[in-house]
Amino acid sequence: MAIDRRIPANHLCYRFDTALPPVWRVRPGEWIEVEVPDGMAGVIQRPEDLYRAVDPDHVNPVVGPIFVEGAEATDTLGVELREIRVDAPQGYVLIIPGFGLLRDRYPAAHTRICPIRDGVVQFHQDLSLPIDPCIGTIGVAPAGEGLSTIMPGDHGGNLDTTDIRQGATVYFPVAAPGALFGLGDPKAVMGDGEVAGTGLGVPITVVMRFLLVKGWRTPRPLLQTRRSWMTIASAPTLEEACKLATADMVALLIRARRMTPEEAYMLTSLAGHLRISQVVDPWMTVRMEMSKELLPLAVPGRGGSGT
Amino acid sequence: MAIDRRIPANHLCYRFDTALPPVWRVRPGEWIEVEVPDGMAGVIQRPEDLYRAVDPDHVNPVVGPIFVEGAEATDTLGVELREIRVDAPQGYVLIIPGFGLLRDRYPAAHTRICPIRDGVVQFHQDLSLPIDPCIGTIGVAPAGEGLSTIMPGDHGGNLDTTDIRQGATVYFPVAAPGALFGLGDPKAVMGDGEVAGTGLGVPITVVMRFLLVKGWRTPRPLLQTRRSWMTIASAPTLEEACKLATADMVALLIRARRMTPEEAYMLTSLAGHLRISQVVDPWMTVRMEMSKELLPLAVPGRGGSGT
Repeated sequence: MAIDRRIPANHLCYRFDTALPPVWRVRPGEWIEVEVPDGMAGVIQRPEDLYRAVDPDHVNPVVGPIFVEGAEATDTLGVELREIRVDAPQGYVLIIPGFGLLRDRYPAAHTRICPIRDGVVQFHQDLSLPIDPCIGTIGVAPAGEGLSTIMPGDHGGNLDTTDIRQGATVYFPVAAPGALFGLGDPKAVMGDGEVAGTGLGVPITVVMRFLLVKGWRTPRPLLQTRRSWMTIASAPTLEEACKLATADMVALLIRARRMTPEEAYMLTSLAGHLRISQVVDPWMTVRMEMSKELLPLAVPGRGGSGT
Repeated sequence: MAIDRRIPANHLCYRFDTALPPVWRVRPGEWIEVEVPDGMAGVIQRPEDLYRAVDPDHVNPVVGPIFVEGAEATDTLGVELREIRVDAPQGYVLIIPGFGLLRDRYPAAHTRICPIRDGVVQFHQDLSLPIDPCIGTIGVAPAGEGLSTIMPGDHGGNLDTTDIRQGATVYFPVAAPGALFGLGDPKAVMGDGEVAGTGLGVPITVVMRFLLVKGWRTPRPLLQTRRSWMTIASAPTLEEACKLATADMVALLIRARRMTPEEAYMLTSLAGHLRISQVVDPWMTVRMEMSKELLPLAVPGRGGSGT
C-alpha cells in the first residue's frame, strides 16, 4: 500500500507530556510507517545482557511526540493499526528483580533470547509459539503534569493489552493541541497479564493512520476490533480498574442502544467480558469486551483519504 | 446415553462442610444426571419478585452432599461435565442492593426476566443472546470449618467461571472421605466478571461423572477444556488471586515439561492468559489459561467404565 510518510526511530522520549515539543507533524488520514524500537531500546541482545544494563532513565522509549494536525483538547484521537511487521531475528523475555507478579519468588535477574523465524518464536528446542504482535505502550499526552511512559492511565501509555494488535483501532482522549502521540514497547507475543513483567520484546514496523473524532470524547482508551468494542481502564488496583472499565461500557450501551442504566448494567453482567491486560506496571490495566452485535457503536472518525 | 443414576433437586444445602451428612453415594465412572435448581431456589419468577423475597439463609443452594465412593483426603476429584441442558422457559438477572461491582451507583433492587426459546435468551425485543450455560458453584467440602456456598475458595465453591461448561472437566482437592461434592447456581449465559452479581439464573440438568485421581493432588481447582488447562484461584483481592493462579500454572509447567522455574515463569508471561472469573462474590476469582500444546499435562484420572 502507498505510504505517505515514514517515521524512523531516531527520536525517542520517555514521557507523555504536553511540555515536550513535537518532533513530527502528521495529518489525519495520512498512512504513516513507523519504526518502533523494543522496550529496552535495543540494549538486550544476548542471554548475558541483564536488565541492570538498561539505564533506568531510558526504559520503555516511545517514538514521538507526534503532533496530529487539527487535534484539539476536546477531541478523540483514533489510531488505526493497519499492519504490524516483525522483522527482527530474535526477541527477549526478562525476569527483572523487584518487578513482575511473582517478584517475591524470583529475586534474581534472568534474560532469555528467543529466535524468531518465519513467524514462529522458538522458546526452546521443542517449544515454539506463533508470533502475535502487539503494542505495549501507546497514547497521547495527558492533561496536567505529564507521566512516565512506564505508567498506564486514561491517556493510554503502558497499557500492555494484547488486543492492541494489527487490525485494531484504538481511541484516546486528546488533552493538548496536536494530541502529542507516541508508541513503543512492542512484543512479538505476550500473555494476558504479562505476569513476569515483559512479553517477548522486539522492534517492529507499524503501518497506521490517525482518525480525528470531533464532538465525541472517550474518557479512557477505547479499542475496536473486528468483532468487539473494548473499554480499557488502568488504576492502582485491578478492582478499581474493573469498575472504571465496566462503568465506561455501561455508558456506551446507554448511548448506543438507548437503554436504561439498569438494563445496560444487567447486559454487561450477561454479555460483557472483563479481561486482564496487565498486572505488573505501576498501575494495573483491564478491559471489558462487548460484541459489536450487542454494542452497535458508531464513532464519527475523520481521516480517511476522502474526508 | 445410558444414565446410571438420577439425582433430583430434593435435597439442597448451603454449605460445603465435612460436618454435613452425605445424601447420595456415587461410584467414580457412573454417569449421573443431576437436576440443579437456580441460585435463588426458584423464588424469582416474575419481574416484581425482588431479591428481598429470598431468604438470606437460603441463597445459592447446591445439590448435595454427594459422597464419592473411594475418595480420600489425599486425592483429587475430577468432574466430567458431559452435558448441560437448559429446559427452563426463562431466566432472571438481578441487581441486588449492596452487591455487584457498581453497587455504589445501583442502590435499588431490580429483576429482569428473560424468556429463553430454542437456545436463545431474549434480553429485550431486538436484543438476544445465544445460551452458553455454565455452573456457578461447584466443589467439595474444604478441610476445617466449612464454608457458605456463597464463598469461592481452594475447595471450589462459588467460582462463577464461564469455562465450567459442557465438555469441561474440573478437578478439586479432596479434603474429606467421599469428597462431599455439591453443585448449583447455574446460568444460561454470563459474562466474565459477572459484574452486576448474577448471570442469567436458570435451573439446569447436568449429565456428569466423577473421576478419582490417586497419587496426585491439585492445590486449587483445575479446569480442563478441549484446548486448554486453567488454574483457578480465589482470594480477597484480584491481585492475590492472580498470584496464586500464576504460581499454580508455573508449577504445572515445571512438572509437565521439566522446565526450570525461571523458564516456566517466562513462558507464562509469553503464553499464559490471566482471565477474570468473577469480581463480586466475597472473594474474587481468576483463572490462568495455557494451551494443551504448551502444557501436555496427563492427569491419571480413574473412573471410566473400563477402569
